[in-house]
Amino acid sequence: MEFLVRSTTSFPPGLSAQDILDLRGQERTLAMALRADGILKRLWRLPGKQGTLGLYETKDATHLHDVLTSLPLFPYLTVEVEALATHPQEMTTDVAAAVPASGNGSRGSR
Amino acid sequence: MEFLVRSTTSFPPGLSAQDILDLRGQERTLAMALRADGILKRLWRLPGKQGTLGLYETKDATHLHDVLTSLPLFPYLTVEVEALATHPQEMTTDVAAAVPASGNGSRGSR
Amino acid sequence: MEFLVRSTTSFPPGLSAQDILDLRGQERTLAMALRADGILKRLWRLPGKQGTLGLYETKDATHLHDVLTSLPLFPYLTVEVEALATHPQEMTTDVAAAVPASGNGSRGSR
Amino acid sequence: MEFLVRSTTSFPPGLSAQDILDLRGQERTLAMALRADGILKRLWRLPGKQGTLGLYETKDATHLHDVLTSLPLFPYLTVEVEALATHPQEMTTDVAAAVPASGNGSRGSR
Amino acid sequence: MEFLVRSTTSFPPGLSAQDILDLRGQERTLAMALRADGILKRLWRLPGKQGTLGLYETKDATHLHDVLTSLPLFPYLTVEVEALATHPQEMTTDVAAAVPASGNGSRGSR
Amino acid sequence: MEFLVRSTTSFPPGLSAQDILDLRGQERTLAMALRADGILKRLWRLPGKQGTLGLYETKDATHLHDVLTSLPLFPYLTVEVEALATHPQEMTTDVAAAVPASGNGSRGSR
Amino acid sequence: MEFLVRSTTSFPPGLSAQDILDLRGQERTLAMALRADGILKRLWRLPGKQGTLGLYETKDATHLHDVLTSLPLFPYLTVEVEALATHPQEMTTDVAAAVPASGNGSRGSR
Amino acid sequence: MEFLVRSTTSFPPGLSAQDILDLRGQERTLAMALRADGILKRLWRLPGKQGTLGLYETKDATHLHDVLTSLPLFPYLTVEVEALATHPQEMTTDVAAAVPASGNGSRGSR
Amino acid sequence: MEFLVRSTTSFPPGLSAQDILDLRGQERTLAMALRADGILKRLWRLPGKQGTLGLYETKDATHLHDVLTSLPLFPYLTVEVEALATHPQEMTTDVAAAVPASGNGSRGSR
Amino acid sequence: MEFLVRSTTSFPPGLSAQDILDLRGQERTLAMALRADGILKRLWRLPGKQGTLGLYETKDATHLHDVLTSLPLFPYLTVEVEALATHPQEMTTDVAAAVPASGNGSRGSR
Repeated sequence: MEFLVRSTTSFPPGLSAQDILDLRGQERTLAMALRADGILKRLWRLPGKQGTLGLYETKDATHLHDVLTSLPLFPYLTVEVEALATHPQEMTTDVAAAVPASGNGSRGSR
Repeated sequence: MEFLVRSTTSFPPGLSAQDILDLRGQERTLAMALRADGILKRLWRLPGKQGTLGLYETKDATHLHDVLTSLPLFPYLTVEVEALATHPQEMTTDVAAAVPASGNGSRGSR
Repeated sequence: MEFLVRSTTSFPPGLSAQDILDLRGQERTLAMALRADGILKRLWRLPGKQGTLGLYETKDATHLHDVLTSLPLFPYLTVEVEALATHPQEMTTDVAAAVPASGNGSRGSR
Repeated sequence: MEFLVRSTTSFPPGLSAQDILDLRGQERTLAMALRADGILKRLWRLPGKQGTLGLYETKDATHLHDVLTSLPLFPYLTVEVEALATHPQEMTTDVAAAVPASGNGSRGSR
Repeated sequence: MEFLVRSTTSFPPGLSAQDILDLRGQERTLAMALRADGILKRLWRLPGKQGTLGLYETKDATHLHDVLTSLPLFPYLTVEVEALATHPQEMTTDVAAAVPASGNGSRGSR
Repeated sequence: MEFLVRSTTSFPPGLSAQDILDLRGQERTLAMALRADGILKRLWRLPGKQGTLGLYETKDATHLHDVLTSLPLFPYLTVEVEALATHPQEMTTDVAAAVPASGNGSRGSR
Repeated sequence: MEFLVRSTTSFPPGLSAQDILDLRGQERTLAMALRADGILKRLWRLPGKQGTLGLYETKDATHLHDVLTSLPLFPYLTVEVEALATHPQEMTTDVAAAVPASGNGSRGSR
Repeated sequence: MEFLVRSTTSFPPGLSAQDILDLRGQERTLAMALRADGILKRLWRLPGKQGTLGLYETKDATHLHDVLTSLPLFPYLTVEVEALATHPQEMTTDVAAAVPASGNGSRGSR
Repeated sequence: MEFLVRSTTSFPPGLSAQDILDLRGQERTLAMALRADGILKRLWRLPGKQGTLGLYETKDATHLHDVLTSLPLFPYLTVEVEALATHPQEMTTDVAAAVPASGNGSRGSR
Repeated sequence: MEFLVRSTTSFPPGLSAQDILDLRGQERTLAMALRADGILKRLWRLPGKQGTLGLYETKDATHLHDVLTSLPLFPYLTVEVEALATHPQEMTTDVAAAVPASGNGSRGSR
């Protein structure tokens, strides 16, 4: 099941720059593992924001909660989760499968 | 450039069931063309809602506006658009490319 | 997976009282089937509101969307869905299982 | 009378990890007592959130307030309470009683 | 148990002035009965609004819902209900009892 | 003139438990005086909230502001004030006068 | 006592241009009477809005409600009322009295 | 040009009572100068709030920003500004000019 | 003085396609005149929205209100206006003057 | 592509006045470079606010995010970004090009 996860990061004043660097490094490492696992499918930045928008796929909300609370940055995140239902157009595998990440936005007429 | 497009559909009372069926058919046809064009990349239903959440890729917001206003359902849509910035993790093509649609959510431990 | 489903009902002016009665009857019948199926687990009224709050259990959001859109009242509903994660306290079956509906609120000290 | 209780937890910076662990332990103990008392009937996590959604049954709002303020975590909670009215469908005991906690969501057609 | 009930009235265009007059008459009659019953305790106008703010006392939210849905104006009301808990200062009968309606606001120094 | 006053209490971290106890004691003492003066007419707790809902009667908003800012807890309060207009049903003294505080909610049919 | 009254006007489709003209004429006439009475003290347009912002002075909220409901446009208004308390700086008559309407904004340095 | 300026004051914990007293004194002095200049025309308290509502007249928004940022309390203010357009009824000087501050609200029938 | 004007268009059901075309034509004509007058400085579409975002320069809010209410589409617009103050960086004419419309977004490094 | 960027500045208590002065100096220097680059096209103050409203032109949202995060004040900003689509009226270069900054608002009739 897919979820849209919107998270905003805010570090308490006391946290040193080095602490933050370490946390971000650990976050990146875990993110790679989650991608390899097919759990983290896409990740975007929201321009000007200190946070991300992510597309996750997990068994259910309980599994998602375990994944999110395992993120090193979790204690500093404010998270909004939205459950996504599969659209009939994507129930036929041929169309939905080929979904490359951000590439060349020039396709399609203006 | 990618955009998250949240749309809610509401038909005026006067529209017949047949009109609505026709509109939805035309909408599906155009959606397939937009997918083939790489413009419509993913489409979800929001459970219980009369609308969709879509991931679009276009040259810019002007191109996106042209695409959205060309949708047969556009006159009956309320649309919220969010511009998405590429996350550094997805700037390296190997990871970001392989992004299958909704499949097996069982991956990744609980 | 469990979901909290908040729905508000509003009938268009043209719908006759008889139409509404029929719809409500069909809704009740389907609700009984969904309860028998373990899908609709609890249903409440929000005092003063024209709508309900329901606890549903389905495979995922897609299954929930199918269930909700099959409700006779669906065309007249505005729905908000919240995905629920199982709390660790309820992962051990003995506690969570015994969850009778509204009964005697007198238990527990004031 | 039943209430839906939505609570968000936020600990002040000064509170040590050990303090928090102790508080959560005391909270769990009280929760068990409240369940045994039929006051705390269901408890869920909201995926990604630092808080819970609970179904409580008490004599009235005053009794509920006493229960909530007796929670060890209460000083660190932001709470939203919603009064629930019994739905006619659940006034007949046979249907409403059998309400197992989260189990197998596979029932019911897709 | 006491509830604060905020209701906004909006009549559909088709309803005649006479219909509205009749409805308001029936509403007043029922209000008197509810007052005599100790259920409707206070009723205010919110300046400039088409609606009221009421203090109700009923057994529970289910009883309140029955009362509100029995109001002739109910089909034209949008209602917000807030459950009220008794304040410790009012648990001792002597103070709380003497609570006259709007009278002379001149008491107490400026 | 009557006002509905909704206040939320939040103490800064530095304030000791004893300070808070003292403040609450002084608040209770002043509340009694305001009741005797007919200014504070009713006070409720909002279940789960750190604050109160109060019915005040003062000459005007300026008088109310003086009363509220004289409360020992005022520096720690966030306050929302709503001006209340007398409802025609309460302009005849006989009905409105007899308005006992929270008593037996059992009156009135379900 | 002074109030800030924010009102938005929306006419139902059926109302003819002539009806609206007549209503506005009656509104203007009543407004002049209210000004002469010292009740309507200032009236502004909110740029781009179909409505006004007004400064009213009445005995209390009940008096204000009577005034507002007597406006010919009242059935077509959505109104928000805010009670205003006199600021200590304006309790001394010499300063507060001289309060000309919109005149020359050029005073005071840039 | 006239503006409605709504400001909420919140002092950081570190600021001493004496600092605050001094700031308020300086604020009052500047306010008197702005009144003499015809820039600050009216000032109200919002009952129960730590802040004010002010009617200002300046050349334009830039001039207003200069005035507001020159206030001693500015660093501690959260400000909302609304541009006001002159209402046709006040374009004729005779009516608009005579606008006394808060006086006797008893004028005008109930 | 500059204003940001956000407007959303919604036509009532009864308005024919031809009426709408005519209105849009008249709107375009007036827009050109306003541009020539230096009043309408920039106009954007908000992707997916039925409305525009405009940068206007007028003497004051009253002048802006006259301009907006003169727009043929005004009866069908919902408008939000924000007053803009000149930034110190733009008070020196050399920088601020050269402000071409949308052109080449490629400048500046990624 | 153009974006409207709304940012609010809030400095943590620990930051010295000198630090803030230095940051603002660095911000101004970078702003000049961004203007020379055609990326920062207009910048306004919102009267009474600690922040700005800016019109930016960048390749896409990713480029915009890089620009915004490069601002010295970025760690202290809360930012809202809105993607802007070119309006058909501005697709013909002659009109859109000549867009002087804030100048003489006196043009155009009242």
